[in-house]
Amino acid sequence: EKHAYGSWKTQLMLAGLGIVIGALVGCLDTIFGKVLLWVSDIRTAHIFYLVPVLPLVGVCIVWAYKKYGGRSGEGMGLILSVSHREDEEVPRRLIPFVMISTWLTHLFGGSAGREGVAVQLGATVSHQVGKRFSVEDGTHIFLLTGMAAGFAGLFRTPLAAIFFAMEVPIVGQLALRAILPMCTAAFTAASVSAFLGLEKFQVPLELQMAVTPVFVGKLIVIGLIFGCVGSLFAFLLGKSKKKLAEILPNPLLRVFLGGIILSILLLFFHQGRYTGLGTNLISASFDGDTIYAYDWLLKILLTVFTLSLGFQGGEVTPLFSIGASLGVILAGFMGLPVMLAAALGYAAVFGSATNTLLAPIFIGAEVFGYEYLPFFAIACLAAHIFCHFPSIYGKQKYGSYRKSLLQLVKGKEKSI
Amino acid sequence: EKHAYGSWKTQLMLAGLGIVIGALVGCLDTIFGKVLLWVSDIRTAHIFYLVPVLPLVGVCIVWAYKKYGGRSGEGMGLILSVSHREDEEVPRRLIPFVMISTWLTHLFGGSAGREGVAVQLGATVSHQVGKRFSVEDGTHIFLLTGMAAGFAGLFRTPLAAIFFAMEVPIVGQLALRAILPMCTAAFTAASVSAFLGLEKFQVPLELQMAVTPVFVGKLIVIGLIFGCVGSLFAFLLGKSKKKLAEILPNPLLRVFLGGIILSILLLFFHQGRYTGLGTNLISASFDGDTIYAYDWLLKILLTVFTLSLGFQGGEVTPLFSIGASLGVILAGFMGLPVMLAAALGYAAVFGSATNTLLAPIFIGAEVFGYEYLPFFAIACLAAHIFCHFPSIYGKQKYGSYRKSLLQLVKGKEKSI
Repeated sequence: EKHAYGSWKTQLMLAGLGIVIGALVGCLDTIFGKVLLWVSDIRTAHIFYLVPVLPLVGVCIVWAYKKYGGRSGEGMGLILSVSHREDEEVPRRLIPFVMISTWLTHLFGGSAGREGVAVQLGATVSHQVGKRFSVEDGTHIFLLTGMAAGFAGLFRTPLAAIFFAMEVPIVGQLALRAILPMCTAAFTAASVSAFLGLEKFQVPLELQMAVTPVFVGKLIVIGLIFGCVGSLFAFLLGKSKKKLAEILPNPLLRVFLGGIILSILLLFFHQGRYTGLGTNLISASFDGDTIYAYDWLLKILLTVFTLSLGFQGGEVTPLFSIGASLGVILAGFMGLPVMLAAALGYAAVFGSATNTLLAPIFIGAEVFGYEYLPFFAIACLAAHIFCHFPSIYGKQKYGSYRKSLLQLVKGKEKSI
Repeated sequence: EKHAYGSWKTQLMLAGLGIVIGALVGCLDTIFGKVLLWVSDIRTAHIFYLVPVLPLVGVCIVWAYKKYGGRSGEGMGLILSVSHREDEEVPRRLIPFVMISTWLTHLFGGSAGREGVAVQLGATVSHQVGKRFSVEDGTHIFLLTGMAAGFAGLFRTPLAAIFFAMEVPIVGQLALRAILPMCTAAFTAASVSAFLGLEKFQVPLELQMAVTPVFVGKLIVIGLIFGCVGSLFAFLLGKSKKKLAEILPNPLLRVFLGGIILSILLLFFHQGRYTGLGTNLISASFDGDTIYAYDWLLKILLTVFTLSLGFQGGEVTPLFSIGASLGVILAGFMGLPVMLAAALGYAAVFGSATNTLLAPIFIGAEVFGYEYLPFFAIACLAAHIFCHFPSIYGKQKYGSYRKSLLQLVKGKEKSI
């Protein structure tokens, strides 16, 4: 009997390869993640020595990518293009390039994330393993497998990772075809990085509240606000990349001059509060420390600026920090528990900026406890209304449900 | 600013109409569900008087559908065809036909479900409301909205209902386009039926267990078994409908002669243990009462036989009972807690038979507690491997991820 996604033999082979890929990616994620936390600590300790050097580091990163990086510099865009079959090859050198340049970005105080990097690492490893095997539609399957493994290994949230990789390439479609290797790879990667001692960020909420219609209404309203903010981030990122390239077409000059302004701003605002991943804002949100009303906005602006100049890193951890710190501020206005509002923001802003629905729901559940999943679902469904604006992934596609329907229903092509 | 899924004005209107539809469907679901439970009690009390009449009732149902039902008899198939735009109209008379014939089927002991009926009720109401408004792609949007409302109102599980309606029409695609009215309709329907006193089936599990690799392995294995069994149900249902129509082409004769055999079998096996919804098996599974090793198999066979003859009803509650009673039996072999195995079966067999992934995960969470969602996710992901065989919904389509990709990527149509 042939399995609808390929023969049973192929499926078994994919499941096995998923485990191998997951193990490799789990190791790589651990190295990447541990060194990243280490350089972040160094930066925090010596902020006034390191941040001023940022413009020069930027010049080095941009120059090295241009000179030796080949297409590595396209990052997530290249990964998504290959998954869409518009490109064929993810070069191996993407791995050292993106790892080292992200470490440098963080050591010298750029405001950026890490998940985009982990996803690129995973996808590249998986692509390189997969191309040794002849599997129908293999390029696509291995790409998604690697994306899931990369995300799962870094955050140790395998379910969110699987749904993230299934959802991200085409909005509104689940890449179920690759489900078996994605599962084995994601669970393996998460287990391996756990075994190797990569920390998992987890805040078990302990909330008691009555689920009234008013409460549900509040979840919807706050979800809408988070949705707006996530879209704002994606919008600004796209605009700013374009505008800066117009104003200063030379990328080296751009990162140098922009880097000077950036490093001044980063030091000016609370002495480096907005450098790095933004985990300081996340901790402050959940530990009850000071959160300023403008924290979320400055973190948006400085992250967008950092990434538009050519520094490397992901977007997701800053998005978590933006959501959490905005949640703290909104909680008071809305009469919601601070921890809950922060947790909802953590998940929903990320979902809106990446145009995903299931990934943020599961991230919320995996980080804050599955018993609150319904609340995350309501807020993320509300946020999803703003998910049709450009996402942070420029190469993401919109699988029009309607278009594919028309394709399925032959001879019914007339518009309705 | 135009919203990607239509103008903001349209979206707001759809959200409002969702509330109206949800309220109507919630009322209808309550009437349908309450009467169904009432006739089921009558049947249980007078089983030897009622079950022998089943063949005659079958003749009446099939005759009435043929004579006056128009296309109502196509049931879920018609609903899915309209959602695919292969048909235009869901007739209003579907509502009384499917309600009354399902009540009769259950009163006289047929083994069948109820959710298919609720989904049809919801879809018909929504279709009738929706056609008064001119919305781009409205037929499709209102159909899905009604399906979500119907499911949500009957089981009071709005999140599972939303994902069910999003997933069912095309495997591997999420109908995100209709998300706003689906949400308002599903939550309204669930609230209205709760307000009107329709019971929600809920079994809060209280389990303490260590999540070890062996435990996860067991979840995967049991998920695979449930996946097989769900596919077996769908396979037998399709085969049996065809075979019976070949052997006895006259539908009235078919339901009469088949009905005689069916009623004898139903009475012969433990005096009606396999009549009706199968909630007796579900209660026995979770209350620790007797479950026979063959309960799940007989429930499959008798439900398939009932539905192939032309009796009315859904399939999902029998699927729940099949999964739960099989879970009880497997628990001993696998060394899993009985309640957990029963709960996993409840969700995963349903998912496999309907080719859905998110709906069963959320049903499991909404019925047994969100803290166990990861376990449901693992078992349902494993079961999903068997989800590419014909499902119980013959009109379901398979949205090949790959096909739509090729369509999206113009000029790259060569096979890979």
